[in-house]
Amino acid sequence: MRKCKLCEKEAMVFFRSHRIALCKDCIKTFVERRVERTIRSYKLMSKGERILVAVSGGKDSLVLWQILTNLGYEADGMFIDLGIPEFSEVSWEKCEKIAQKLSRKLFKVKLEDYFGTNLINIAKIERREPCAFCGMVKRYIMNQRAISEGYQVVATGHHLDDETSVLLGNVLNWQVDYLRRQGPNLEESDGFVRKVKPLALCSEDEIKSYAEASEIDHVEGSCPLSKGATSHFYKSIINQIEERMPGTKLRFYKEFLKAKKEIFMENKSVKLMPCSRCGYPTTAGICAFCRLIDRVKTRIQLFQERTQFGEEP
Amino acid sequence: MRKCKLCEKEAMVFFRSHRIALCKDCIKTFVERRVERTIRSYKLMSKGERILVAVSGGKDSLVLWQILTNLGYEADGMFIDLGIPEFSEVSWEKCEKIAQKLSRKLFKVKLEDYFGTNLINIAKIERREPCAFCGMVKRYIMNQRAISEGYQVVATGHHLDDETSVLLGNVLNWQVDYLRRQGPNLEESDGFVRKVKPLALCSEDEIKSYAEASEIDHVEGSCPLSKGATSHFYKSIINQIEERMPGTKLRFYKEFLKAKKEIFMENKSVKLMPCSRCGYPTTAGICAFCRLIDRVKTRIQLFQERTQFGEEP
Repeated sequence: MRKCKLCEKEAMVFFRSHRIALCKDCIKTFVERRVERTIRSYKLMSKGERILVAVSGGKDSLVLWQILTNLGYEADGMFIDLGIPEFSEVSWEKCEKIAQKLSRKLFKVKLEDYFGTNLINIAKIERREPCAFCGMVKRYIMNQRAISEGYQVVATGHHLDDETSVLLGNVLNWQVDYLRRQGPNLEESDGFVRKVKPLALCSEDEIKSYAEASEIDHVEGSCPLSKGATSHFYKSIINQIEERMPGTKLRFYKEFLKAKKEIFMENKSVKLMPCSRCGYPTTAGICAFCRLIDRVKTRIQLFQERTQFGEEP
Repeated sequence: MRKCKLCEKEAMVFFRSHRIALCKDCIKTFVERRVERTIRSYKLMSKGERILVAVSGGKDSLVLWQILTNLGYEADGMFIDLGIPEFSEVSWEKCEKIAQKLSRKLFKVKLEDYFGTNLINIAKIERREPCAFCGMVKRYIMNQRAISEGYQVVATGHHLDDETSVLLGNVLNWQVDYLRRQGPNLEESDGFVRKVKPLALCSEDEIKSYAEASEIDHVEGSCPLSKGATSHFYKSIINQIEERMPGTKLRFYKEFLKAKKEIFMENKSVKLMPCSRCGYPTTAGICAFCRLIDRVKTRIQLFQERTQFGEEP
């Protein structure tokens, strides 16, 4: 039987990359300390600020909300209802449950209020995989609502596995502009609140153990629409590398953040201007979110007109 | 039956990343054209220059020698005898055979002449995997002999799979100095001849098909000392990615070369000075090659003294 390195009680897990065995209680301390250190090291936020956590009902975002609250931050929750049958309802229930437990405010926004339909139908209209634009849509709504509700920071539950798999994709395609912007802290700028990822240095395994140890009730598995997504493939690649060389994941990300300062010239980053429709910062003209709304609404209208006149849609 | 895209004869291979089927003859044309384009695009060498090809007896370096000769370059061969029982002898025979076929000069250098022993024993003395220093040793000797024999360029058989697996390793560890120097053309500088990799944009599969189509007799498989090497692991990772997303390997490398100019500030590269022992450029003091010689020779001497006095070595 392995013993907990911190208190010598029976260990529940062994984290290979840190070579540490921990019991149920000390997992919580360990992960919370790591999050606290991440917040401090990358100056993510301070105790006085109003923080909005993007919660999905999955373990990552609920763990984040729990930890921020435990650490004494003023963090409320925001749930975006994507309208995925069953999945979205169950997800919302999990968020409500933890909101009550934490005694914090929880907002709900429906995708349908923006687009007149749900994510699945938008994907059909766009003829693209939902993952291709779901992130963009959620970022837009989170930012917009954070501003309108008076929050200074949006915090998301992205962990080390998310960050390194995105980093791998960005590197394989040498997406220099994405690389310049990737990191646990995307500072506020005109039209954007600050966006932070306090779990960025915690692996998915660590978050999972924390959720278990803290008995956080959450939706199991990933979004049903994301099956076969490239992000899952990149994660499996990263995990193969980690399996063979424990610690690589953390080094890949931390060394990237160090190297970024040196090798990516910040001044060359893209200039943004307000969207001529909604005012959201964009590279030119009308932003991607408004263009998506246009396409979806046009198609819905066309469909309704055709149905009205008895045509095959 | 698939037809060759260039001549409509029966195809022998299908290269997925280029979506092209080719017959035995057209494989040769296809690969040679790619090599010619690589040479031109990255200004690797010109027809008047004296080129020394580092040949190992494996398919990559022999294919390179054949192609350079076919394209009209003045390329001789240099073989470094690492002293690996059986493997080194067979390798040397393959090199001799192609040298005769091409009617070109072939040099042989023995590692033993430098270190007093072979690669296997050096690895034992160093208590390191041979791969950890074999590359450094070979680069040193190639460069030294190229200079003493009056060659302007050393050409090696590194192909796209080699280059991308090294690139992946450099990126996972964010080895910024290595990233700055990686590429198909390492320009000559004080104490260094130019080092080029004309096969850098050809995948291992393409080289293998070329070797088959040209009936180049070569040593099968990789060096017996490299079993379990990290480079093999990185290659398997890269090939998994290529399998899922054909063309990624080539894009990863070419986009890196483009991005490199923009994101890596050349002026920050490491300053070199001559080794105080041999004059080879090094970061400081005595170079890695001379330090290795010192350690190996000291150990051999110690061993001989102990044996002489009847002690257990």
